[in-house]
Amino acid sequence: MKKKEKSNVSKLKIIPLGGLEQIGMNITAFEYEDSIVVVDCGLSFPADDMLGIDLVIPDTTYLKDNIDKVKGFVITHGHEDHIGAMPYVLKEINVPIYATRLTMGIIENKFREHELLKTTKRKVVKFGQSINLGQFRVEFIRTNHSIVDAAALAITSPAGVVIHTGDFKVDYTPVFGDAIDLQRFAELGRKGVLALMCDSTNAERPGFTPSEKTVGKTFDNLFEEHKNTRIFVATFASNVDRVQQIINTANRFGRKVCVEGRSMVSIIETARNLECISIPENTLIEIDQMKNYPDDQQVIITTGSQGESMAALSRMASGVHRKITIGAGDTVIFSSNPIPGNEKSVTKVINELLRKGADVIFQDAHVSGHACQEEIKLMYTLIRPKYAIPVHGEYKHLKAQAKIANSLGISKENTFILSSGDVLELDEESAKVVGKVPTGGILVDGLGVGDVGNVVLRDRQHLAEDGIMVVVMSLDSCTGELLSGPDIVSRGFVYVKEADELIEEARCVVNEALQKCFDRNITDWGKLKSTTKDALGEFVWKKTKRRPMILPIIMEV
Amino acid sequence: MKKKEKSNVSKLKIIPLGGLEQIGMNITAFEYEDSIVVVDCGLSFPADDMLGIDLVIPDTTYLKDNIDKVKGFVITHGHEDHIGAMPYVLKEINVPIYATRLTMGIIENKFREHELLKTTKRKVVKFGQSINLGQFRVEFIRTNHSIVDAAALAITSPAGVVIHTGDFKVDYTPVFGDAIDLQRFAELGRKGVLALMCDSTNAERPGFTPSEKTVGKTFDNLFEEHKNTRIFVATFASNVDRVQQIINTANRFGRKVCVEGRSMVSIIETARNLECISIPENTLIEIDQMKNYPDDQQVIITTGSQGESMAALSRMASGVHRKITIGAGDTVIFSSNPIPGNEKSVTKVINELLRKGADVIFQDAHVSGHACQEEIKLMYTLIRPKYAIPVHGEYKHLKAQAKIANSLGISKENTFILSSGDVLELDEESAKVVGKVPTGGILVDGLGVGDVGNVVLRDRQHLAEDGIMVVVMSLDSCTGELLSGPDIVSRGFVYVKEADELIEEARCVVNEALQKCFDRNITDWGKLKSTTKDALGEFVWKKTKRRPMILPIIMEV
Repeated sequence: MKKKEKSNVSKLKIIPLGGLEQIGMNITAFEYEDSIVVVDCGLSFPADDMLGIDLVIPDTTYLKDNIDKVKGFVITHGHEDHIGAMPYVLKEINVPIYATRLTMGIIENKFREHELLKTTKRKVVKFGQSINLGQFRVEFIRTNHSIVDAAALAITSPAGVVIHTGDFKVDYTPVFGDAIDLQRFAELGRKGVLALMCDSTNAERPGFTPSEKTVGKTFDNLFEEHKNTRIFVATFASNVDRVQQIINTANRFGRKVCVEGRSMVSIIETARNLECISIPENTLIEIDQMKNYPDDQQVIITTGSQGESMAALSRMASGVHRKITIGAGDTVIFSSNPIPGNEKSVTKVINELLRKGADVIFQDAHVSGHACQEEIKLMYTLIRPKYAIPVHGEYKHLKAQAKIANSLGISKENTFILSSGDVLELDEESAKVVGKVPTGGILVDGLGVGDVGNVVLRDRQHLAEDGIMVVVMSLDSCTGELLSGPDIVSRGFVYVKEADELIEEARCVVNEALQKCFDRNITDWGKLKSTTKDALGEFVWKKTKRRPMILPIIMEV
Repeated sequence: MKKKEKSNVSKLKIIPLGGLEQIGMNITAFEYEDSIVVVDCGLSFPADDMLGIDLVIPDTTYLKDNIDKVKGFVITHGHEDHIGAMPYVLKEINVPIYATRLTMGIIENKFREHELLKTTKRKVVKFGQSINLGQFRVEFIRTNHSIVDAAALAITSPAGVVIHTGDFKVDYTPVFGDAIDLQRFAELGRKGVLALMCDSTNAERPGFTPSEKTVGKTFDNLFEEHKNTRIFVATFASNVDRVQQIINTANRFGRKVCVEGRSMVSIIETARNLECISIPENTLIEIDQMKNYPDDQQVIITTGSQGESMAALSRMASGVHRKITIGAGDTVIFSSNPIPGNEKSVTKVINELLRKGADVIFQDAHVSGHACQEEIKLMYTLIRPKYAIPVHGEYKHLKAQAKIANSLGISKENTFILSSGDVLELDEESAKVVGKVPTGGILVDGLGVGDVGNVVLRDRQHLAEDGIMVVVMSLDSCTGELLSGPDIVSRGFVYVKEADELIEEARCVVNEALQKCFDRNITDWGKLKSTTKDALGEFVWKKTKRRPMILPIIMEV
């Protein structure tokens, strides 16, 4: 890296506001003096123990506290883990948004639903174009990924250039648009790059990720092999290139295409309006037209490749879909891999499909959208950054990329695996984590944003494990005397029928404990409640080895 | 298959009592006239939606209804999915048990805990030995598997011979004991076998499963590469051969071995007493002795390879283990693959270990215990059964084996994928599913066996999603007049602090609805409760888009 003139410039701060502790919530603040730009604004799906939660969005307190500095959001691509939290965050931090065409199209779909279209400033950026945001200049550079119009960002501040790859792969023969702009990365690398923040998702995998086009060939072969059946293809709603290839193959084999699943229909419509997909005339049909064509002239592209129980594929497999049922003689191609954690639900759908007599194909019809080890090495070698800051992945993925960076000559001291909220201060002289800002996941449940926290989740977990026993009693407001009760009502504990005797016994135990209190003139509600909890809890544990939540309620009459 | 003399024999019935709908609950009844023998008696671990459930055991109503016929249980090997339900089932169906040495040792450990040792008849069977059980003769044939002393069963009745492989692989160079008795299978095949019930777990995988011995070589290499660190190896508690190989390698490298994890300590002790494992003197050390040896002279073999949060490895990784903490400089070898569904928790432990600075090795130190496609073909080819009845696996695995059987010349008509409870009647003339017996999973929660059913689980699910709102009120027992309340208490719904206003508003809504009832002289409790539910439910949904469980409780004073 060439030495630059030394001057009294400040340092750049890089602050992941989501990231490692909140996988999926990709949102990173770049701060230089009076300017902040934010890269991406993703959401995370709830962990298994976040019962009842719909989604998790980043805590953006830091941005709100520095609202005057925030110049805008720059977005790498249109996946949920990079844009999903925008409707929630932009309601509070209303700054301009910059993104490429399809990315912006998908964002606008979201904003339409949340009635934010009128209040947000949005600018569509072309590849190669730079935008000025306070002390920053941000250039959008073309990459390839499993969604069209993905961009890397070259973020220039007086402290130097940082390149953020976004999610990417190297596809020399992409389905839509051009290959990743390797020349531009090389050019920036020659001029000197301070830091590279590179996608780590596949950093454990050796070799190269195959081109998306290879999947097209697979479709050709599979359609040839299953000429006489109806064909279903399940894939990710946002993989417009994949849909393009299915349509190409369908067209080649004279099949009509029906698209099923709300999210997929919406994204394809957006892509079509933006001319990111090209669908020959008379190819698409509506679901109601399917009956007009024989089975071997149909392809149904559908959501649900992750086994989501409410998605079109699951419903078609289990026979609860309004219009389509999959059965004997149908061929179902999974054009996807299970995302970690979804293996069991995917298998469930496959078993259901096989049981119904369908032919299920679950191999070779998918390639990843993320760079493997050789592609990551290529990026480091073109860009030759001073610092390596692996991003996008779990700790083991970031660690794997750190090892790659080290093997290419970047020292361990210059390699940073950042946790959420870490403030990394860097310039050409040095880089160091200097502090921590508050971060975290805010839980969204129905209309509630942030009104469900740890206490509520702990209660839900407790209720889920062993149910609840409610103990009610009425006390005389003057004398404190027991007028009625204690009565016990349980839910989620045991069969009421089988438990009748147990509950009656429990009632006696509580009654006895309470009487002892009354005998000693104890009328303090807190004491009565804790007595109830202790006596009932102990009794139930002894009898059942379970600990239902016990909720004593006292009424004053 | 040779033709046998025709006679007026009855047909054989094969009835899976667990199986396909209850994966893991391996238990199959063989019935011929007045005799029933039962193969295996496994348990299943609860599905994700079985909240709070500890384990699931088979419904053995059919056996209880035919208790006079039941001659005994014959057990193939000592894994939980083949023996785990025995303590529960044997309490009700007390018949003799037949198993090989180590299998019986593990069963006896269980029976000791459940105080069943004195009341059950048990007989240890040698390989090659046959036992007579009513109209049946059952021969135990040596196989190989990921636990020592695994057996296949040749079950002979007047209707013919059925071979049940149990869980098996073909290991020409096993660590302990001899290779699978292929000659005996061939001999039986030449004489004529009616049906083969063959392990389907790996029926989707091409090729051969490598010998357990190959893992030993891997350990040698890994120990060589990590000469200067403490080494942890995580594996399945019951894989005695694996433990043997780790001990062998440890010994070769002059390391002491400490075994950690209750289940593993217990099984190794049993294996040692039965001489199924050979541990050189002065090799094993207690956990408290570890401090007497330098790190590079220690190996810790531990449970928790599936990421189980309560197992030793997780506790050592997260620093809550009493005696051992894993940190920088330690090497952790996973000698296991994640069982489907456990991927996320395994990854969680790996991330935690990497974060602590440990070196984690997660490849090549494991082989499967189940036969792949070529081994399955070998068995079919040696045995040449008339009927194929794939067992052990999800639907997709059974289907994959059915395809293999068909490719080897067994017709589709002679191939049966049975569901739980199916009664397959067969002899040399024909085979047909003729009926269905009641089966199902009985949920065990704490001390309760079968007292938690669908209603309770639905309630738990409901509570888990959105929590509960309890509405209490006191009515005058004479006039029916409202004396106190309605009061609302919620748990698992929203932060009480944030919800104060919401709850107060809700109280007014309920009060108003109730007043309307009282104005119209409605005093029926059912009506008052449903009014409360409707009014509150609608209000809460409108305000929050959530549906907490609503539990109205009326007290009479």
